[in-house]
Amino acid sequence: MGSLIIIGAGLVGTALSIYLTKRGYRVTVYERSEDVRTTLKSTRPSVNLTLCERGLRSLDRIGLRQIVERSSVPAYGRFIHHKNGEMVYQPYGREEQALYSISRNELNTILLNAAEEHGVRIVFSTGCLDIDLSTGEVRLEDAAGHSWGETPTCTFAADGCFSTVRSRLQRKERFDYSQHYSTQGYCELHVPPDASRLSAWPRNGLHLWPRSEHMLITFPNRDGSLTCSLHLPFEGQPSYESLSSESDLIELFKTDFSNLLPLIPNLSTQFFEQRPNTMLTIRCSPWSFEDKVLLIGDSAHAILPSYGQGANVGLEDCAILDEIVGRYAPDWKRAFIAFEQLRKPETEIIADLCYEHFVELQKFTLDPTFRLRRRLERILHELFPGEFATLYSMITFTSMPFSEALRKDREQQKIIDKLMRYPNIADRLEQKDSQLWLEKFAVLHQAKI
Amino acid sequence: MGSLIIIGAGLVGTALSIYLTKRGYRVTVYERSEDVRTTLKSTRPSVNLTLCERGLRSLDRIGLRQIVERSSVPAYGRFIHHKNGEMVYQPYGREEQALYSISRNELNTILLNAAEEHGVRIVFSTGCLDIDLSTGEVRLEDAAGHSWGETPTCTFAADGCFSTVRSRLQRKERFDYSQHYSTQGYCELHVPPDASRLSAWPRNGLHLWPRSEHMLITFPNRDGSLTCSLHLPFEGQPSYESLSSESDLIELFKTDFSNLLPLIPNLSTQFFEQRPNTMLTIRCSPWSFEDKVLLIGDSAHAILPSYGQGANVGLEDCAILDEIVGRYAPDWKRAFIAFEQLRKPETEIIADLCYEHFVELQKFTLDPTFRLRRRLERILHELFPGEFATLYSMITFTSMPFSEALRKDREQQKIIDKLMRYPNIADRLEQKDSQLWLEKFAVLHQAKI
Repeated sequence: MGSLIIIGAGLVGTALSIYLTKRGYRVTVYERSEDVRTTLKSTRPSVNLTLCERGLRSLDRIGLRQIVERSSVPAYGRFIHHKNGEMVYQPYGREEQALYSISRNELNTILLNAAEEHGVRIVFSTGCLDIDLSTGEVRLEDAAGHSWGETPTCTFAADGCFSTVRSRLQRKERFDYSQHYSTQGYCELHVPPDASRLSAWPRNGLHLWPRSEHMLITFPNRDGSLTCSLHLPFEGQPSYESLSSESDLIELFKTDFSNLLPLIPNLSTQFFEQRPNTMLTIRCSPWSFEDKVLLIGDSAHAILPSYGQGANVGLEDCAILDEIVGRYAPDWKRAFIAFEQLRKPETEIIADLCYEHFVELQKFTLDPTFRLRRRLERILHELFPGEFATLYSMITFTSMPFSEALRKDREQQKIIDKLMRYPNIADRLEQKDSQLWLEKFAVLHQAKI
Repeated sequence: MGSLIIIGAGLVGTALSIYLTKRGYRVTVYERSEDVRTTLKSTRPSVNLTLCERGLRSLDRIGLRQIVERSSVPAYGRFIHHKNGEMVYQPYGREEQALYSISRNELNTILLNAAEEHGVRIVFSTGCLDIDLSTGEVRLEDAAGHSWGETPTCTFAADGCFSTVRSRLQRKERFDYSQHYSTQGYCELHVPPDASRLSAWPRNGLHLWPRSEHMLITFPNRDGSLTCSLHLPFEGQPSYESLSSESDLIELFKTDFSNLLPLIPNLSTQFFEQRPNTMLTIRCSPWSFEDKVLLIGDSAHAILPSYGQGANVGLEDCAILDEIVGRYAPDWKRAFIAFEQLRKPETEIIADLCYEHFVELQKFTLDPTFRLRRRLERILHELFPGEFATLYSMITFTSMPFSEALRKDREQQKIIDKLMRYPNIADRLEQKDSQLWLEKFAVLHQAKI
């Protein structure tokens, strides 16, 4: 069996290293940064993410689902905080279905430990400088500035949205590439576990303050703390540009997130000491060069975080590539092409859905038609759980291909269109026999609802 | 007045250098390649291009329209060679309206000579390695490998679709970028002036052999020769990949371009000795960084060559930037932002139109509905020259903004839609009174046709 190099010891790089080691390959992972396990305690809490079925299923296949679920906080729905103080709870799916909120660093730690237990060699503080596409030689450099070359059987670039390997491919002829930044950025604010009034806070879900052009989301942590993710435009009103003083910031929170204000200590220090994180979508093709190198995860298809899918899609990549490697290796070239053919259309779809969902999250409260449609979807999903599924639940609680979920949703939207044309449908739903009526409507209009 | 650096002595770099010198700036142009005027005779004929009103108007403002027109061959229409041997002539516009076919190198020579006459300093064999965005320092390197830095008032990057300056901007946060390659490439084949049977060849137009998924175009040269541009997919049937021997190539020409076969000597040598040229579309934003640097021409907005607009749009950039510089300089930051605000939406439109037109050129013969629509457009354009203009003629023979041309065309297509709904419209056009009927139709349906 050959020796393989993986660039990047993030979530995708470490998960992939376990998959490939289990197949009998000798795998070395090079990671530019220091070991996150040694730096974990000294830095502020890392970005939170939510795992759903796609990511968890991939973790399951390398024996990590249980430990990860135990290290997470399940979120069964979203609590929407309206501007008038009202709070509305919406379950994400059926009663037992949850997203699993976990800090990126904690998840990475679980994966790093497991990879080392499987015999993966992980070399930290060592970055990839370049890759010679004609020979497959990877140029590496350690923290002391010492550099050398290694020529593995092939290389997997899991080096994220600013991938060095991809920038090498980009200089080749006929490499299609696009990077598109969101006009918004996010920063993270920390609510400590002992914050006053926090004990009364519902912790079994994410909380969302949609405010049209900006929003705030909180993620629960296992230690009882909360991580707030504040999304703001870079320019405009309000924006990172317009908020220039503590009083501007307090004013914004008083207007839009007043119930959070007492929970965040040192709000102003926390906010002003960090640079907002950018969010970008990356699309490119081809993902591979001959049998030498394959892009995987964010380096091939970074998406906006709005749908909570970035890490899940990356972990799903690993499971799918593993199957393809089982089928085609050692014909790596064929494996790489098969992987892209299968996977690229799927990642294109989720990239687009992330744009739409980002707008949807921010505008949650504004459009009554939109809210009525969503309500109808949820009602039909409850009435016909086997037949009618919301797009969100198909994306989040199944591992069906995104393309299939989208196709199914388009069919279902036709039923919602029909219902929306019914006179006074909103009032009709309030009547006692609405369930029976909907069932009749469904039978009448679509035998196979 | 400040000193300015322009990177790239191509068409846009040299034209811009003249504009800025006329405004009193001290301008130095650095060009990575050797002086095209010294290498001109030793190399094979360069790519042809066609100048239209946009480009010529910009050349006019720096006193070069006449000399360029005299150095070109006017093309008043296209001769379409169908597969059955039939040849159809379509004028591009009114009788006196022409495209001007010229080799890129000849046009560049005229611009280089004029720039030096205006006192522009042009330094050849000296490339830009990098630009320091914080200081504006440009790192330069000559052919001997000697490198140094210069810090001008500001820098204009006219360094084409593989711009070094843009790749520096791309590494900055929140720089949107995309490069998209056509699945086709083109190669150029030369028909010498003394080729047999060439004397009978109509030379007052371009010749086009549309063949659905591939095509050939010829451009007339002043010395009586022709330049053929053969467009083929990289993969498929036929393609650069599928044509692997002389007999494959001859077979293709016999089937698709048989009347050209006797005109091209050493067809096989000419074809196989060159690598096909790729074609790509580049979109990015922002085009500038503070008051330090501005992308202009292909470095900001490379487009497919199908509409013959690449050079024209680049030259138009120079005229428009010149006006903006007149209004805002020395507030360069404001000038750069104003330039992009005005110009980027226009270049987005022409980039899209180039895609559409590329398909249109190749499929010319296939769709009778499409051909009928185009025929109706031309008839209406002739009947109502002041009111109804084809999109092609607005793009090519006017300098109205592309956005305005597109808006006008969308309105006009509604009229064509109405005509197409008329029963047996094709037959109706053949009747003797069709002109009178169309005039009545126009009055009836659209007072302001």
